[in-house]
Amino acid sequence: MSKLQFAIIGAGNGGQSFTGHLGLLGFSARLWDVDPQRVEELRSAKKMVVSGAVAGQCDMPLVTGDIGEAIEGAHIIMVVIPAVYQRSTVKAMAPHLKDGQAIVLNPGATGGALEARATLDEAGCRADVLVAETDTLLYACRSPRPGEAIIGGVKEGLSVAALPGRDGRRVADLLKQAFPQYQPVSSVLITSLNNANAMMHPAPTILNAGRIECKEAFDYYFQGVTPALARVVETMDSERLAIGKALGVDVPSIHDFYRTSYSADGKNLHEQLQHVKAYEGIKGPTTLNTRYIFEDLPTGLVPLSALGNAMGVPTPAMNAVVELGNILHGRNYWTEGRSLEKLGLAGLSPQQIKAKIG
Amino acid sequence: MSKLQFAIIGAGNGGQSFTGHLGLLGFSARLWDVDPQRVEELRSAKKMVVSGAVAGQCDMPLVTGDIGEAIEGAHIIMVVIPAVYQRSTVKAMAPHLKDGQAIVLNPGATGGALEARATLDEAGCRADVLVAETDTLLYACRSPRPGEAIIGGVKEGLSVAALPGRDGRRVADLLKQAFPQYQPVSSVLITSLNNANAMMHPAPTILNAGRIECKEAFDYYFQGVTPALARVVETMDSERLAIGKALGVDVPSIHDFYRTSYSADGKNLHEQLQHVKAYEGIKGPTTLNTRYIFEDLPTGLVPLSALGNAMGVPTPAMNAVVELGNILHGRNYWTEGRSLEKLGLAGLSPQQIKAKIG
Repeated sequence: MSKLQFAIIGAGNGGQSFTGHLGLLGFSARLWDVDPQRVEELRSAKKMVVSGAVAGQCDMPLVTGDIGEAIEGAHIIMVVIPAVYQRSTVKAMAPHLKDGQAIVLNPGATGGALEARATLDEAGCRADVLVAETDTLLYACRSPRPGEAIIGGVKEGLSVAALPGRDGRRVADLLKQAFPQYQPVSSVLITSLNNANAMMHPAPTILNAGRIECKEAFDYYFQGVTPALARVVETMDSERLAIGKALGVDVPSIHDFYRTSYSADGKNLHEQLQHVKAYEGIKGPTTLNTRYIFEDLPTGLVPLSALGNAMGVPTPAMNAVVELGNILHGRNYWTEGRSLEKLGLAGLSPQQIKAKIG
Repeated sequence: MSKLQFAIIGAGNGGQSFTGHLGLLGFSARLWDVDPQRVEELRSAKKMVVSGAVAGQCDMPLVTGDIGEAIEGAHIIMVVIPAVYQRSTVKAMAPHLKDGQAIVLNPGATGGALEARATLDEAGCRADVLVAETDTLLYACRSPRPGEAIIGGVKEGLSVAALPGRDGRRVADLLKQAFPQYQPVSSVLITSLNNANAMMHPAPTILNAGRIECKEAFDYYFQGVTPALARVVETMDSERLAIGKALGVDVPSIHDFYRTSYSADGKNLHEQLQHVKAYEGIKGPTTLNTRYIFEDLPTGLVPLSALGNAMGVPTPAMNAVVELGNILHGRNYWTEGRSLEKLGLAGLSPQQIKAKIG
């Protein structure tokens, strides 16, 4: 195989970090963005300057707004955009895909790979394409301006899973030429059910809605997730674990997540959060028009609830949060978001769902 | 008929006001309370001193903790206690009731009369008793100490309805010897569906839960019911109106309520609330353990949702608020509260429900 070629879909913080990091590693990465102005600014910048945990600068072989051009010849298509745009973006690339290409959603939130697969099928894509998702982004990073990426940290490991599950190892084998951090896991259910954002973002935001709309400043995790609100999160989390159990996947609890990722102990979630140093200075949203709702409902709680529904697992707490989010936003995330239809699972029995995901 | 005799069940603000007012009007009113200390204090006070819109003092013929003694010989039993205690209190009086007595719940919240009727049936009460409920309390009042009632205002009119509906006029005819303010309406559906508290209390409280648990002071109606939160209330209100429509009752909207009761105009609920002078100085709860949840869920949203369910009217917004209230309180108001079973309506068809309520 010729040297690995990448397409980076999305020139935000993550996409620019990938482009710069790959350039420094000696790989070719074409960069695409939906925003013509962003594309123009990156072309003017000519180089990507990376600083932080990884440092240096590199040329950008191609920056484009033409998604067909971006993915042409790419072995790996790294999709690095908010999960709510994955569906439309995968649909746009569908006619241009070729056999053997791999799409990796960085990350897929809940149901990213399932939605992408269903979108390709719906678009009549016949190419033999690998579809994969991760559970998180490789980097802690930001881009102060186009052409500059500050990589605060590179994670030591993250999970990648493919659809069907047996293809996960192939994706990880491809990726490890550049990124040994990607560890294959057996099923997209593992990456999809490990959605801490869906637990931590919408419910506390909605239960602080009055305060947020009054623009009162508060520390999101320390003051926003009060003892009773933490119990709401814990109730939603128990629903998430029950979905995992029904699907035959052992999912770490939110308590495990904070113990493992942040070494935060405590006799309940509220106590644990008080010990998460990384949350110092993180303020609550200053508007209800926040991604904590408009991203984490359609690509988090809605597909989790849909999976629960398909498996016969009740999710009343998640459902309540979605209902109130719908009203607060005047939208219907049940249909806009990752429903069973969008996940390609409508009408399937629990057994068929397990077989399909593999 | 001998001169009208009253029993006043509950010696809080309202019960003491009734006792004093009736005494001043020349009627005999026996007073009961569940709390032995309260009974003792009232006995020590000997007289009821009333001030405000009604002023004077009168003897109290009997203050007792024995509910059988309290209701003996009473033509009208005025129940003046929080709606959540109506069920247990009616159950306690069941063995002592006699033909011809009338129980009036002041007020019944949603489903008070239905619940009382079902409770009497369940207790095997064979007495031919009138069961009625009002939509509000006659007085704006408070009692600074046992034996003193300050009646800030006496409402010009309030609605009373009986079960079945045709008995409403009989109850109003009895009451008008003392209280011409009680206007008969044709059905307890009218009094029960006119539950503004169920609209205004639980949802804004729950959507301000973080702020409340942090003990941040805020004006409940002016700062607590933000534009988006008012839309949640309006959505619940549209569910309430749809239940009324399905039951054949024309229910005033929350907008009508504020126009009629407070002369508050505005292009939506949020705007109307800014013009309600009576809400000046009303602060939000300082704890989540508030009657805005522990009263207004079980005797407001739960029976409203139950009626919707029985009539095939979806109530997703109300249900979401109940679900979250349940988690915040660690309770199950669906079963603790006025379910279809408690209302005596379980298993009935919409047609049978309409016929039963009459």
